[in-house]
Amino acid sequence: MGKPLILVSNDDGITSRGIRVLVEAMQSIGEVVVVAPDSPQSGMGHAITIGDTLRLEKSDIFKGVAAYECTGTPADCVKIAKHYVLKDRRPDLVVSGINHGSNTSISVLYSGTMSAAIEAALEGLPAIGFSLCDYSSEAELEHVIPFVKQLAKEALQKGIPVGVALNVNFPPKRDEPIKGVKVCKQAHAKWQEEFDERYDPYGRRYFWMAGNFVNFEVGENNDEWAIANNYVSVVPCQYDLTSPAAIETISESWDF
Amino acid sequence: MGKPLILVSNDDGITSRGIRVLVEAMQSIGEVVVVAPDSPQSGMGHAITIGDTLRLEKSDIFKGVAAYECTGTPADCVKIAKHYVLKDRRPDLVVSGINHGSNTSISVLYSGTMSAAIEAALEGLPAIGFSLCDYSSEAELEHVIPFVKQLAKEALQKGIPVGVALNVNFPPKRDEPIKGVKVCKQAHAKWQEEFDERYDPYGRRYFWMAGNFVNFEVGENNDEWAIANNYVSVVPCQYDLTSPAAIETISESWDF
Repeated sequence: MGKPLILVSNDDGITSRGIRVLVEAMQSIGEVVVVAPDSPQSGMGHAITIGDTLRLEKSDIFKGVAAYECTGTPADCVKIAKHYVLKDRRPDLVVSGINHGSNTSISVLYSGTMSAAIEAALEGLPAIGFSLCDYSSEAELEHVIPFVKQLAKEALQKGIPVGVALNVNFPPKRDEPIKGVKVCKQAHAKWQEEFDERYDPYGRRYFWMAGNFVNFEVGENNDEWAIANNYVSVVPCQYDLTSPAAIETISESWDF
Repeated sequence: MGKPLILVSNDDGITSRGIRVLVEAMQSIGEVVVVAPDSPQSGMGHAITIGDTLRLEKSDIFKGVAAYECTGTPADCVKIAKHYVLKDRRPDLVVSGINHGSNTSISVLYSGTMSAAIEAALEGLPAIGFSLCDYSSEAELEHVIPFVKQLAKEALQKGIPVGVALNVNFPPKRDEPIKGVKVCKQAHAKWQEEFDERYDPYGRRYFWMAGNFVNFEVGENNDEWAIANNYVSVVPCQYDLTSPAAIETISESWDF
């Protein structure tokens, strides 16, 4: 059996440090193909490009790795990788990241990193999105590499339940080493937005959106707790959004 | 008690026919405030604007209705509505749409219409996204209005479980009247993409992404079945993506 085929994407763009570290880690495990955005796509959620064209160009940014940069979103990158670049080959694993910034809790909805992983899960492929809970572009990444490799190997050997993508977040570099891995749920939290109102040099009003993270969780079995306590968090995410409990409640009480 | 306050948004933009029909329907029920994108935002998923500014301008497009057009995504519109425009008032209901095109099944992930509704649910507000399964901008909308009103009234009277947004899809206008409403699950389906490769007048390659919808469902308790059989589909959607079953599987079988 040959080396596993690993597709790498991200949302910070093909030139980011996070994807370089991820590509190097995956090269020690398998054959790597990269299809990533040609510019930062943070906060793109599960956006796709409709009503506009896409470009895809070869890139020699990674030595010895077939890499392509795409004008589209992270979800577009996985689509064009699966159905065009790798049309005749099936990746054994799809990894996305390493994102510069947290994608714990509700941030999973806004995350381009995770939309790439979820798009792969939709295709029935094992997929993991990796994020570092440190927004600095200079943030230390070395301490997470052993976990990236171990989780990728486990995904290749044991598989990920079909229809599920893993949302993996790493604590920032601290004095003590990372304590371990917690497989847990998405914390119940939200971003409480503030809109900073300003005026441009022409006197026209504009806004900066700025949020404060509000965590409603008190328990331990969630990703916010894991990161705060220096664990790696692994949240298995499904793309079927149906709430079975709400089907029951609404069917019983509403009149149509 | 005064009239209920209803916030209206969409993803096709403030000038679309679908939002006009929705605003008129909501005016018969409550006080309406509109915050909608100033241009089409289809396929934006749950994208938000970070790293760029937002504009928000008053619009007199709807007679007797306070309306604002925003340069941001549907999720941005709900955020700026909740935390700026309606900072001191709490909407009783948030509705989004009526989208020109289906948002059944997996399309919920790519849908700007539903991202507006889910963003509202995140804020603890009852929220419904409405979509018509007809992509024509000239599509007949009259036949869905009684259902739009009835569902909005039920949401106001009976509430929607907290953390849940309803994904409502309407069948296209057919010879026979709509048969009724099915509260059901998101069908298991995907878009099988094709990339149409072309060359621009300068000899540079580009792509159009075009998908074929593939439905894996055979049963009846899902939104694809409902629409195909001339029912309105109502899928209660949650934003907690955690798969509890996968937590168990991975915790038991993986080595960290």
